[in-house]
Amino acid sequence: MITVVRDAWIVTQDPQRRIVRGDVVVDGERIVSVGGEYKGSADREIGASGDIVIPGLINTHTHVAMSVMKGAADDMPFPRFLERVFSIDSERTDRDIGVGAKVGCAEMIRSGTTTFVDLYYSEDVIARAVMETGIRGVLCWCVLDDDLTTQKGSPLQNCRRFHDVFKGTRKIIPGVGLQGVYVCNEETCMGAKALSDEKGAPLTLHLSETRGEVNGHREKTGKRPAEWLCDMGVIGGNTIAAHSAWLTLGEVRQMAAAGASVSTCPTSNMKLATGGVAPVPEFQKHGVNVTVGTDGSTTNNSLDMMAELKTLGLLQKSSRWDPVAASAQELLDFATVNAARAIGMEGSLGSIEAGKHADLFILDGRLPNIRPLLPENMVSNIVYSASSSNVRTVMCQGDIVMDGGRVTSFDEEEALSESEDVWRSLCQR
Amino acid sequence: MITVVRDAWIVTQDPQRRIVRGDVVVDGERIVSVGGEYKGSADREIGASGDIVIPGLINTHTHVAMSVMKGAADDMPFPRFLERVFSIDSERTDRDIGVGAKVGCAEMIRSGTTTFVDLYYSEDVIARAVMETGIRGVLCWCVLDDDLTTQKGSPLQNCRRFHDVFKGTRKIIPGVGLQGVYVCNEETCMGAKALSDEKGAPLTLHLSETRGEVNGHREKTGKRPAEWLCDMGVIGGNTIAAHSAWLTLGEVRQMAAAGASVSTCPTSNMKLATGGVAPVPEFQKHGVNVTVGTDGSTTNNSLDMMAELKTLGLLQKSSRWDPVAASAQELLDFATVNAARAIGMEGSLGSIEAGKHADLFILDGRLPNIRPLLPENMVSNIVYSASSSNVRTVMCQGDIVMDGGRVTSFDEEEALSESEDVWRSLCQR
Repeated sequence: MITVVRDAWIVTQDPQRRIVRGDVVVDGERIVSVGGEYKGSADREIGASGDIVIPGLINTHTHVAMSVMKGAADDMPFPRFLERVFSIDSERTDRDIGVGAKVGCAEMIRSGTTTFVDLYYSEDVIARAVMETGIRGVLCWCVLDDDLTTQKGSPLQNCRRFHDVFKGTRKIIPGVGLQGVYVCNEETCMGAKALSDEKGAPLTLHLSETRGEVNGHREKTGKRPAEWLCDMGVIGGNTIAAHSAWLTLGEVRQMAAAGASVSTCPTSNMKLATGGVAPVPEFQKHGVNVTVGTDGSTTNNSLDMMAELKTLGLLQKSSRWDPVAASAQELLDFATVNAARAIGMEGSLGSIEAGKHADLFILDGRLPNIRPLLPENMVSNIVYSASSSNVRTVMCQGDIVMDGGRVTSFDEEEALSESEDVWRSLCQR
Repeated sequence: MITVVRDAWIVTQDPQRRIVRGDVVVDGERIVSVGGEYKGSADREIGASGDIVIPGLINTHTHVAMSVMKGAADDMPFPRFLERVFSIDSERTDRDIGVGAKVGCAEMIRSGTTTFVDLYYSEDVIARAVMETGIRGVLCWCVLDDDLTTQKGSPLQNCRRFHDVFKGTRKIIPGVGLQGVYVCNEETCMGAKALSDEKGAPLTLHLSETRGEVNGHREKTGKRPAEWLCDMGVIGGNTIAAHSAWLTLGEVRQMAAAGASVSTCPTSNMKLATGGVAPVPEFQKHGVNVTVGTDGSTTNNSLDMMAELKTLGLLQKSSRWDPVAASAQELLDFATVNAARAIGMEGSLGSIEAGKHADLFILDGRLPNIRPLLPENMVSNIVYSASSSNVRTVMCQGDIVMDGGRVTSFDEEEALSESEDVWRSLCQR
C-alpha cells in the first residue's frame, strides 16, 4: 500500500531541520521518500499543495482517561482541587476509563498528536481503548506503595502483569510509572526501576511538581526528590520526569549525568499556580533532554499539544525576562525529536525521513491564521500561530486516523455520546 | 429577514449569566428572542442542536494591519525586535495595510471575534478593508507629536479628518489613539482627549507596557505615566488603556476613579518578556473595567481571542500563585460585557439579549475537545478547552460572516494570496 502526500511544505525535523517542498511517500508503515516529485504508482493520493506536513507530535505526560472530567475542578484552591479530583478518581469504573481514554485520544488526534505517554492505573483498559483509536500509547502503569494504593493487589505486580499481556502489541508500548516520592518509598522506586530495566521500558514519574512535595521529602529523607532518586540510581536514560519544576541546579546536573528526559507541563503548573517553572534553559545547557506534556484534563482542560508549545514558549520567556528563551524551533524539537528520544524511539519517530514510521500530520496552509506562509516563517507560524483548526489529516504508523477533518480510525461519536453520562455519574456530586 | 438558530445551548452573558437551551431569533440586525422554541416563520434556519451560542468576542487591543508581518520578529532581544518592526512598519504601502487588515479580520472571524479596537495610522485604509469583511472596527487613529511622526501632516488633524469621513459608517466606530507618553507630550495628549470628548469617541493608548517607559517618563516629568495622564484628566470613562502592566496601586485607584477601562495583553507581554503583569485582581477590586486584547501579530503571532482568554487566566493564576484568580466566568466577561462597556456599547453588545445587536457565534459542541459538555462545565469548556477549531458560524450585527466553517462575507482567498507577496516585500530584507 503506497500513499503519496503531494506537493506539501515538509517540515522534516531531520538533523539539518530542512524544510522541503514536494511529496512524502509512505509504503505501509514506513516513510520511503521525502521531497521531490514521486513518479511511481500509488494506491492513495493526498493533495496537500501549500499545506504543511510535520512529524506527529508526542505528548510525554498525560492521564488520558481523565479527559472525561473536563471542567470539573477549575478555579479552586489547590487543597480543594486535590480533594475533588481524588474523590472523583476513586469512583471510576472500567467503562468510565475506557470512554475517557477514547475522548482523550480523539482530542489528541485532532490536534496532531500521534504518540502519548500515559501515567495511570488500569492501563489494560486504556490500552484496549487506545488500540481502537489507532494512535500510539506509551502506557505506564502507576506504581506506588502497596499500603497506600487503591489498586487491587500490588501495583508493581499489576504493572508487571500489564507488561506480560501487552508486550509486542502494535502501537502499544508498555511502560512503568511511579506516582511520586510522596507515596513511593525506596523499595517501591527501586522495584519500578528494576522492572523498567528488565523490560527495556520507559519509566515515568511525577517529580518535584510542588514546593510541598520537595519540602516534605527533604524533611523525611534529608534530600530533595531528584537528588534522592538520582543518588539511588532510579533516574536513568529511560526516565521521563514529569513537571520537574522545583529543581536546583545541582539536581539539573545530576539529571543530565543520568541521561534523563523531563516532560515540562506549563499549563498544568500555571493553572494550579504551584509557583514552579521548569528550568528549561538550564536543562538544555547541561544536557537534560527536554520534552513537553499536556498533563491530564483536570489540570489543563485540554490535550492540545499545539497550544501547549506556545504556552511553554511564553512561560519560559516571561518568567526569565528573556524573549530569546525557548525559540520556535526548540519548542518544535521538544515535541518531536526530543520526545522520540525520551521514549527510546529516536530511530523510528520524531522526524520525516525515509525509513522512519509514517507518523505525520497535515496542517491546512490556506487558513488566515498561518498566512502569509513562507519557509522563513514556517516554524514560527506552526508553533506560535497555528491551532488545531489547521489540522486536517493525521497518520500514525501508516494508518490514517484523521482524514480531511474527520476522525476515521474509530467511532468517536459513540465515546463522546457516553461522556456526558460519565461526567454526571462522576462529577455531579 | 428572520434568522433562527435552533436548539442551542445559549451562553447569554446576561446580568444573571444564564445558560439556556433553545432558539435565538434574529430580526435584521437585532436579537428579538432568546431561549424556548420559536414557532413563527423564518427566512433562514441554522441547526445548532447541542452547539453553543455565545456573544461575539471583543478584542480591545490590536493593530490588525500587522497580521501580514506574522513570524517576522520572533525570539529576539527586545531592542532588536523594536528595530526590526519599526523598520518594516515604516515601509508600508496602502496595499500592504489593506491586505494586512483583511487577513487579520479573517483570522478574527474564524476565532469568534466580531468587534475589535485598532490603534494604527492610515485607519481610512483599514476602515475600507474592514467594511468589506463585515465585522465591527473601533478604529483609533494614532496620534503622536507632530515632530516625531512619520505620518504626512499632523496626526491629530489626520485623526479628526478620519472621524469626519467615517462618522456614521455602519460597523465602523472612529476612535482616537495615543501612541504612548514616550512620543506624546502634554499638548498632544490633551488634544487627543479633547477630540475624543468632542466626538464622543473611545480613546485608546499604550500605557505602562515596559519598565523603560515608566522610568523614562518619571525621569522626564517626575510622575509615572498613568499618574501623569490621570492628573491631567486625559484618562476618563471613554479610555481603554492597553497593557497597563506596570502600575502602582495608587495608579490603579486613579484609573478606577476616572472610570477607565484597561486592555490587558498577556501573550504580548509574555512574548516580549517585558516583565510586567497587569494587576487584574486589583483592577477588579478597585473598579477598573478589565478587557482583553491580542495586540498585533508581531507581538503575539495570532489574533485568536479564544486562545488569549486561556493564556490570561494562566498568567494571572501563575504569577499570583493563586489558582482562584481570573475564573473562567470572569475571563468570558472581560471579552464580552466588560469590553462592550469599554467601547461605550453596553446597551447593544456583549450579551445575547432581546434588543441587542445580533453579534454572536456558534461553537461546535460535538467535538471531543469540549466533551463532555454540560451546563455545569460549559463556561470552563469555552474558556479553557475550546479553540478556533470549534468556531462554525459567526454573525455580526445580523450579517453572517462565517457559515459552517467558511468565511462568507468577503473573498478571503484574494487577500491571503497577496499576503506572501507583502511579506516578501516587507520582511525579506
